[in-house]
Amino acid sequence: MERIPILRMGRLLLVTIQVDMHDRLAMTLQDDLTARIVKDRANGVLIDISALDIVDSFIGRMISNTAAMAKILDADTVLVGMQPAVAITLVELGLNLTGVRTALNVERGMQMLDRSHE
Amino acid sequence: MERIPILRMGRLLLVTIQVDMHDRLAMTLQDDLTARIVKDRANGVLIDISALDIVDSFIGRMISNTAAMAKILDADTVLVGMQPAVAITLVELGLNLTGVRTALNVERGMQMLDRSHE
Repeated sequence: MERIPILRMGRLLLVTIQVDMHDRLAMTLQDDLTARIVKDRANGVLIDISALDIVDSFIGRMISNTAAMAKILDADTVLVGMQPAVAITLVELGLNLTGVRTALNVERGMQMLDRSHE
Repeated sequence: MERIPILRMGRLLLVTIQVDMHDRLAMTLQDDLTARIVKDRANGVLIDISALDIVDSFIGRMISNTAAMAKILDADTVLVGMQPAVAITLVELGLNLTGVRTALNVERGMQMLDRSHE
Protein backbone atom coordinates (compact mmCIF):
# COMPACT_ATOMS: atom_id res chain seq x y z
CA MET A 1 0.00 0.00 0.00
CA GLU A 2 1.21 3.44 -0.87
CA ARG A 3 2.29 5.53 2.09
CA ILE A 4 4.49 8.50 2.77
CA PRO A 5 7.58 7.66 4.84
CA ILE A 6 8.18 9.41 8.15
CA LEU A 7 11.81 9.76 9.16
CA ARG A 8 12.98 10.34 12.71
CA MET A 9 15.86 12.66 13.48
CA GLY A 10 16.33 12.97 17.21
CA ARG A 11 13.03 14.24 18.57
CA LEU A 12 11.91 15.56 15.20
CA LEU A 13 9.97 13.76 12.49
CA LEU A 14 10.51 14.57 8.83
CA VAL A 15 7.86 14.02 6.19
CA THR A 16 8.73 14.63 2.54
CA ILE A 17 5.70 14.92 0.30
CA GLN A 18 6.56 14.00 -3.28
CA VAL A 19 3.43 12.48 -4.69
CA ASP A 20 0.00 13.80 -5.45
CA MET A 21 -2.15 13.71 -2.36
CA HIS A 22 -5.53 12.08 -2.42
CA ASP A 23 -8.03 11.47 0.37
CA ARG A 24 -6.85 8.04 1.44
CA LEU A 25 -3.13 8.90 1.32
CA ALA A 26 -3.74 12.02 3.39
CA MET A 27 -5.68 10.03 5.99
CA THR A 28 -2.97 7.36 6.10
CA LEU A 29 -0.35 10.07 6.61
CA GLN A 30 -2.32 11.61 9.46
CA ASP A 31 -2.79 8.21 11.12
CA ASP A 32 0.88 7.30 10.70
CA LEU A 33 2.17 10.67 11.82
CA THR A 34 0.08 10.93 14.97
CA ALA A 35 1.04 7.36 15.89
CA ARG A 36 4.72 8.13 15.33
CA ILE A 37 4.59 11.35 17.38
CA VAL A 38 3.38 9.30 20.33
CA LYS A 39 5.68 6.31 19.75
CA ASP A 40 8.85 8.33 19.13
CA ARG A 41 7.95 11.04 21.69
CA ALA A 42 8.55 13.63 19.01
CA ASN A 43 8.23 17.31 19.81
CA GLY A 44 8.47 18.64 16.28
CA VAL A 45 7.35 17.79 12.76
CA LEU A 46 8.95 19.04 9.55
CA ILE A 47 6.87 18.76 6.40
CA ASP A 48 8.96 19.23 3.26
CA ILE A 49 7.05 20.24 0.13
CA SER A 50 9.99 21.16 -2.11
CA ALA A 51 8.86 18.55 -4.62
CA LEU A 52 5.40 20.04 -5.01
CA ASP A 53 4.76 22.44 -7.89
CA ILE A 54 1.18 23.00 -6.83
CA VAL A 55 -0.45 23.34 -3.42
CA ASP A 56 -4.21 23.47 -3.77
CA SER A 57 -6.86 23.99 -1.12
CA PHE A 58 -7.04 20.24 -0.42
CA ILE A 59 -3.34 19.93 0.37
CA GLY A 60 -3.39 23.23 2.25
CA ARG A 61 -6.23 22.03 4.46
CA MET A 62 -4.58 18.64 4.93
CA ILE A 63 -1.38 20.34 6.13
CA SER A 64 -3.30 22.65 8.48
CA ASN A 65 -5.23 19.72 9.94
CA THR A 66 -2.09 17.64 10.37
CA ALA A 67 -0.41 20.55 12.18
CA ALA A 68 -3.46 20.92 14.45
CA MET A 69 -3.37 17.21 15.31
CA ALA A 70 0.37 17.38 16.03
CA LYS A 71 -0.17 20.45 18.22
CA ILE A 72 -2.67 18.59 20.41
CA LEU A 73 0.01 15.92 20.86
CA ASP A 74 2.44 18.71 21.86
CA ALA A 75 4.49 18.71 18.66
CA ASP A 76 5.09 21.85 16.60
CA THR A 77 4.89 21.71 12.82
CA VAL A 78 7.06 23.65 10.39
CA LEU A 79 6.44 23.58 6.66
CA VAL A 80 9.68 23.80 4.69
CA GLY A 81 10.95 23.97 1.12
CA MET A 82 8.05 25.83 -0.43
CA GLN A 83 8.76 26.81 -4.02
CA PRO A 84 8.43 30.52 -4.88
CA ALA A 85 5.62 29.80 -7.35
CA VAL A 86 3.67 27.99 -4.64
CA ALA A 87 3.97 30.96 -2.28
CA ILE A 88 2.69 33.27 -5.05
CA THR A 89 -0.27 31.00 -5.79
CA LEU A 90 -1.21 30.60 -2.12
CA VAL A 91 -1.47 34.37 -1.69
CA GLU A 92 -3.21 34.95 -5.01
CA LEU A 93 -5.82 32.29 -4.25
CA GLY A 94 -6.24 33.62 -0.72
CA LEU A 95 -5.38 30.25 0.84
CA ASN A 96 -3.90 30.52 4.27
CA LEU A 97 -2.13 27.77 6.13
CA THR A 98 -3.73 28.29 9.53
CA GLY A 99 -1.50 27.45 12.45
CA VAL A 100 1.43 26.37 10.31
CA ARG A 101 4.82 28.02 10.53
CA THR A 102 7.11 28.01 7.51
CA ALA A 103 10.87 28.01 7.00
CA LEU A 104 13.02 28.21 3.89
CA ASN A 105 14.52 24.73 4.16
CA VAL A 106 14.91 21.73 6.43
CA GLU A 107 17.95 23.16 8.21
CA ARG A 108 16.22 26.40 9.13
CA GLY A 109 13.09 24.51 10.10
CA MET A 110 15.15 22.36 12.48
CA GLN A 111 16.70 25.48 14.01
CA MET A 112 13.23 27.01 14.41
CA LEU A 113 11.95 23.92 16.22
CA ASP A 114 15.07 23.68 18.39
CA ARG A 115 14.66 27.28 19.49
CA SER A 116 11.01 26.82 20.39
CA HIS A 117 11.91 23.95 22.75
CA GLU A 118 14.73 25.62 24.63
CA MET B 1 9.18 18.16 -14.29
CA GLU B 2 9.26 15.31 -11.85
CA ARG B 3 12.32 15.21 -9.63
CA ILE B 4 13.34 13.76 -6.30
CA PRO B 5 14.01 16.41 -3.65
CA ILE B 6 17.41 16.58 -1.96
CA LEU B 7 17.40 17.97 1.57
CA ARG B 8 20.44 19.40 3.27
CA MET B 9 21.13 18.77 6.94
CA GLY B 10 24.44 20.26 7.97
CA ARG B 11 27.02 18.65 5.71
CA LEU B 12 24.77 15.73 4.86
CA LEU B 13 22.28 15.41 2.04
CA LEU B 14 19.13 13.36 2.42
CA VAL B 15 17.33 11.78 -0.52
CA THR B 16 14.03 9.99 0.09
CA ILE B 17 12.98 7.75 -2.77
CA GLN B 18 9.21 7.29 -2.82
CA VAL B 19 8.31 6.89 -6.44
CA ASP B 20 9.06 4.29 -9.06
CA MET B 21 12.40 4.93 -10.64
CA HIS B 22 12.76 5.13 -14.37
CA ASP B 23 15.76 6.00 -16.53
CA ARG B 24 15.19 9.71 -16.81
CA LEU B 25 14.33 10.21 -13.15
CA ALA B 26 17.44 8.27 -12.10
CA MET B 27 19.63 10.41 -14.37
CA THR B 28 18.04 13.62 -13.07
CA LEU B 29 18.68 12.44 -9.51
CA GLN B 30 22.32 11.72 -10.27
CA ASP B 31 22.76 15.12 -11.95
CA ASP B 32 21.04 16.94 -9.09
CA LEU B 33 22.83 15.03 -6.36
CA THR B 34 26.35 15.46 -7.73
CA ALA B 35 25.66 19.18 -8.30
CA ARG B 36 24.39 19.55 -4.73
CA ILE B 37 27.37 17.68 -3.23
CA VAL B 38 29.64 20.24 -4.83
CA LYS B 39 27.44 23.28 -4.12
CA ASP B 40 26.68 22.40 -0.49
CA ARG B 41 30.16 20.93 0.17
CA ALA B 42 28.47 17.81 1.49
CA ASN B 43 30.56 14.97 2.87
CA GLY B 44 27.77 12.43 3.23
CA VAL B 45 24.64 11.26 1.44
CA LEU B 46 21.73 9.37 3.03
CA ILE B 47 19.41 7.56 0.66
CA ASP B 48 16.17 6.53 2.35
CA ILE B 49 14.26 3.70 0.69
CA SER B 50 11.75 2.97 3.45
CA ALA B 51 8.90 3.69 1.02
CA LEU B 52 10.07 1.09 -1.49
CA ASP B 53 8.49 -2.37 -1.39
CA ILE B 54 10.66 -3.62 -4.25
CA VAL B 55 14.29 -3.01 -5.14
CA ASP B 56 15.09 -4.55 -8.50
CA SER B 57 18.40 -4.74 -10.31
CA PHE B 58 17.79 -1.38 -12.00
CA ILE B 59 17.32 0.49 -8.73
CA GLY B 60 20.16 -1.47 -7.13
CA ARG B 61 22.55 -0.48 -9.92
CA MET B 62 21.31 3.11 -9.83
CA ILE B 63 22.07 3.29 -6.10
CA SER B 64 25.51 1.71 -6.55
CA ASN B 65 26.37 4.13 -9.35
CA THR B 66 25.15 7.12 -7.39
CA ALA B 67 27.29 6.05 -4.41
CA ALA B 68 30.31 5.67 -6.71
CA MET B 69 29.78 9.17 -8.11
CA ALA B 70 29.42 10.62 -4.61
CA LYS B 71 32.59 8.81 -3.52
CA ILE B 72 34.62 10.44 -6.28
CA LEU B 73 33.34 13.78 -4.97
CA ASP B 74 34.51 12.70 -1.49
CA ALA B 75 31.06 12.03 -0.02
CA ASP B 76 30.13 8.72 1.62
CA THR B 77 26.74 7.17 0.93
CA VAL B 78 24.62 5.23 3.40
CA LEU B 79 21.42 3.50 2.37
CA VAL B 80 18.81 3.58 5.11
CA GLY B 81 15.32 2.34 5.90
CA MET B 82 15.38 -0.87 3.91
CA GLN B 83 12.32 -3.01 4.54
CA PRO B 84 12.92 -6.58 5.72
CA ALA B 85 11.25 -8.01 2.59
CA VAL B 86 13.62 -6.00 0.41
CA ALA B 87 16.67 -7.37 2.23
CA ILE B 88 15.34 -10.91 1.73
CA THR B 89 14.73 -10.34 -1.97
CA LEU B 90 18.15 -8.76 -2.54
CA VAL B 91 19.91 -11.81 -1.12
CA GLU B 92 17.64 -14.32 -2.84
CA LEU B 93 18.14 -12.64 -6.21
CA GLY B 94 21.88 -12.40 -5.60
CA LEU B 95 21.86 -8.63 -6.09
CA ASN B 96 24.62 -6.87 -4.23
CA LEU B 97 24.83 -3.18 -3.60
CA THR B 98 28.50 -2.70 -4.39
CA GLY B 99 30.19 0.02 -2.40
CA VAL B 100 27.07 1.00 -0.50
CA ARG B 101 26.87 0.88 3.29
CA THR B 102 23.52 0.38 4.95
CA ALA B 103 21.98 1.45 8.25
CA LEU B 104 18.67 0.68 9.89
CA ASN B 105 17.28 4.20 9.79
CA VAL B 106 18.20 7.83 9.13
CA GLU B 107 19.40 8.42 12.69
CA ARG B 108 21.83 5.51 12.63
CA GLY B 109 22.93 6.45 9.13
CA MET B 110 23.74 9.97 10.35
CA GLN B 111 25.74 8.53 13.25
CA MET B 112 27.61 6.25 10.86
CA LEU B 113 28.53 9.17 8.60
CA ASP B 114 29.50 11.37 11.56
CA ARG B 115 31.85 8.69 12.86
CA SER B 116 33.53 8.19 9.50
CA HIS B 117 34.41 11.90 9.37
CA GLU B 118 35.86 12.25 12.83
